[in-house]
Amino acid sequence: MSVSDSVRVKTIAYEPFPQIEYQNRVDRARQLMRQFAFDALLVTSEHNLRYFVGEISTTPHQTTRPRFLLIPSSGDVVGIIPMGMDEFYKETTWIKNCFTWPSPNPKDEGVSTLIKAFVDLLPERAKIGTELGAESRLGMPAGDFLRVTEAIKPRVFIDASDAIFTPLRMIKSPAEIGRIRTVCGIVSEAFDNLPARLRVGMTEREACRIFELECFSRGAEKTPKIQGVSGRGGYTRPYGVPSDKVLSGGDLLFLDAGCLFDFYWSDFDRHFAFGTPDPHTQDAYQIVWEATEAGIAAVQPGIPICEIWTAMSNVLNSPRNRGKPTTIGRMGHSMGLWMPELPSVQPDDKTILKPGMIINVEPSTTYPSYFDSSPKLMVHEEVVVVTEAGAQLLTSRAPRTIPVIT
Amino acid sequence: MSVSDSVRVKTIAYEPFPQIEYQNRVDRARQLMRQFAFDALLVTSEHNLRYFVGEISTTPHQTTRPRFLLIPSSGDVVGIIPMGMDEFYKETTWIKNCFTWPSPNPKDEGVSTLIKAFVDLLPERAKIGTELGAESRLGMPAGDFLRVTEAIKPRVFIDASDAIFTPLRMIKSPAEIGRIRTVCGIVSEAFDNLPARLRVGMTEREACRIFELECFSRGAEKTPKIQGVSGRGGYTRPYGVPSDKVLSGGDLLFLDAGCLFDFYWSDFDRHFAFGTPDPHTQDAYQIVWEATEAGIAAVQPGIPICEIWTAMSNVLNSPRNRGKPTTIGRMGHSMGLWMPELPSVQPDDKTILKPGMIINVEPSTTYPSYFDSSPKLMVHEEVVVVTEAGAQLLTSRAPRTIPVIT
Repeated sequence: MSVSDSVRVKTIAYEPFPQIEYQNRVDRARQLMRQFAFDALLVTSEHNLRYFVGEISTTPHQTTRPRFLLIPSSGDVVGIIPMGMDEFYKETTWIKNCFTWPSPNPKDEGVSTLIKAFVDLLPERAKIGTELGAESRLGMPAGDFLRVTEAIKPRVFIDASDAIFTPLRMIKSPAEIGRIRTVCGIVSEAFDNLPARLRVGMTEREACRIFELECFSRGAEKTPKIQGVSGRGGYTRPYGVPSDKVLSGGDLLFLDAGCLFDFYWSDFDRHFAFGTPDPHTQDAYQIVWEATEAGIAAVQPGIPICEIWTAMSNVLNSPRNRGKPTTIGRMGHSMGLWMPELPSVQPDDKTILKPGMIINVEPSTTYPSYFDSSPKLMVHEEVVVVTEAGAQLLTSRAPRTIPVIT
Repeated sequence: MSVSDSVRVKTIAYEPFPQIEYQNRVDRARQLMRQFAFDALLVTSEHNLRYFVGEISTTPHQTTRPRFLLIPSSGDVVGIIPMGMDEFYKETTWIKNCFTWPSPNPKDEGVSTLIKAFVDLLPERAKIGTELGAESRLGMPAGDFLRVTEAIKPRVFIDASDAIFTPLRMIKSPAEIGRIRTVCGIVSEAFDNLPARLRVGMTEREACRIFELECFSRGAEKTPKIQGVSGRGGYTRPYGVPSDKVLSGGDLLFLDAGCLFDFYWSDFDRHFAFGTPDPHTQDAYQIVWEATEAGIAAVQPGIPICEIWTAMSNVLNSPRNRGKPTTIGRMGHSMGLWMPELPSVQPDDKTILKPGMIINVEPSTTYPSYFDSSPKLMVHEEVVVVTEAGAQLLTSRAPRTIPVIT
């Protein structure tokens, strides 16, 4: 199977963030460290490292060669990294002070060096914040973490995800919002131009690849999450793999796109009908489109995020919805250097919206099928940034009615 | 900046692995569990889950909604997964028995459910193997892992990376080798056809994107690691970001490609000279090409992997090398559903080669620059599978002399 196409491979040039961007992030982290009486932060995950170091590399971090950053409450920030990488750090980042070890060394992959750094640089009763809390992942083997924990006593590790990493990264700088605006713009263009590229008779897999090519050739740097599912009169779940099923009369194709620009994510979806969509699908699209509208309108600095949920929920629970709200568990989230990021748009999340927050507004409903007995799913998603004046849309907004492919 | 091109978006259709593939993996895991007296395995990382479950989804796992698999020494294998996903598992995988919880729930993201599963299903003195050892990463917050560890006592977690996960996954099945052969073939084609697409005057970034498009359009499903660096008379390190520097007379471009097909990795590199390469670069290319040849020839079942190192090292330490071997720390590794995987081609790694192992043969040298005082780096890489008869090449083999772009 193959489709011929003529593409312009667009390459968007940009400057890396200035050093002040990273200094500001460390300054803000240190304010929170003082507030919660942390003596230091240990940073281990790829996205948190990227947030503070701004490492200039497109190569994904290897599990073989872990990297760490130690941010004491004052003084030099210290890279704890494989030998050889220290020169790279010193030449291309603002980190000038490094502890190193010869790597790979699976028997002691930075463990002794971490211990030495903690013992040399931190007081004996130090409280070291690290990534232990909600939705975090440590960037080292858990066995190594336990060995370090034992060896540095009476110094202790305490979770800093909830107190520091999450609240810090939740508020994006103008530079970060610029990156997210760029990637959401690229994917919006790709979606908006897609109807001209699709046609009845393509397979799900072909349609997904054509769309992925659209995103890439318009300037997306990476296209890690391109998800496509379809079904006659609707789809039943928002994940799976695109198949070799031919798209034709009555099929609804759902495309969900997570793309990257300079490591910042986009994440939103669109729908395409192959032939005229049935009335139930049209109605479900309409009600979820309106719920999205209500969600976006609800965004205001100072309100708890759960009010976005309530606004959307009110639309979805109205008698105009033939179906009923889903049990997906949330109707949105945030994103940035990671996707998804906290907070979630959930009824019990009381996080207060502030300017600079990114919200993926993502309502969903189930609805009765026009063709069979299994209920279908309809999920919409748009990305906004919270401003003093309310939501500012970073995506092009889904059309009011489903684009029809012939 | 943009380049127009006409591409055929090739989509390679394939069948998912049959269920017997996963049953065999579990059977082999259970043999090792008996040998090391484990009562159960807890699987948490995305690539280990994929190895046992064969989940049908292109969506990367969210940190929001962790998934777990419990493999007891006998009886049903149990999925411990977010509510709703159990239907997906039952319909599309061989896992029929699931424990679930309503997710997202950052305050209790599967913790109580894991504890319940361990207490209900495992004896009080159970030894539970999990991912704690070399190069592993737990697919859950470390704080949650510590909570589970406390709550299930006297049951204990023990590392199973070194005893089970690594040796099990090291030997690929014929089906797995087929996937790796496919993706290495796609990327080989892309590299072999690249000289016709490149020209003097392109930027590094453009050349990388043209190459990435070649990989994608020829059938690669994902292109997560496309790394390009260049320099007059050579490059100084194998990572960084492609810049807007124009490629011209005397520049050597190094492209390193990690692509995916059905979640299996390729990883190897090629070089391109923009204008006639200088003599030092040609000599370094030649000696590392020969070292690769020696490394491939050394591959035989029954020998320790360090002998591949020795064979390459002998070439690189010969007086014909104007430069000297690097301090990168290894000259190769394995790969599969993850990249890199253990073992490493290192002087102290005694792992015995067996049929079905994938080896990335990756020698490197530094060499004196023809133009300035800083030494340059030359890294070659090819992928082989170990067979009864020695190495079988999965890549097209780098040309004997550097392709010249005009």
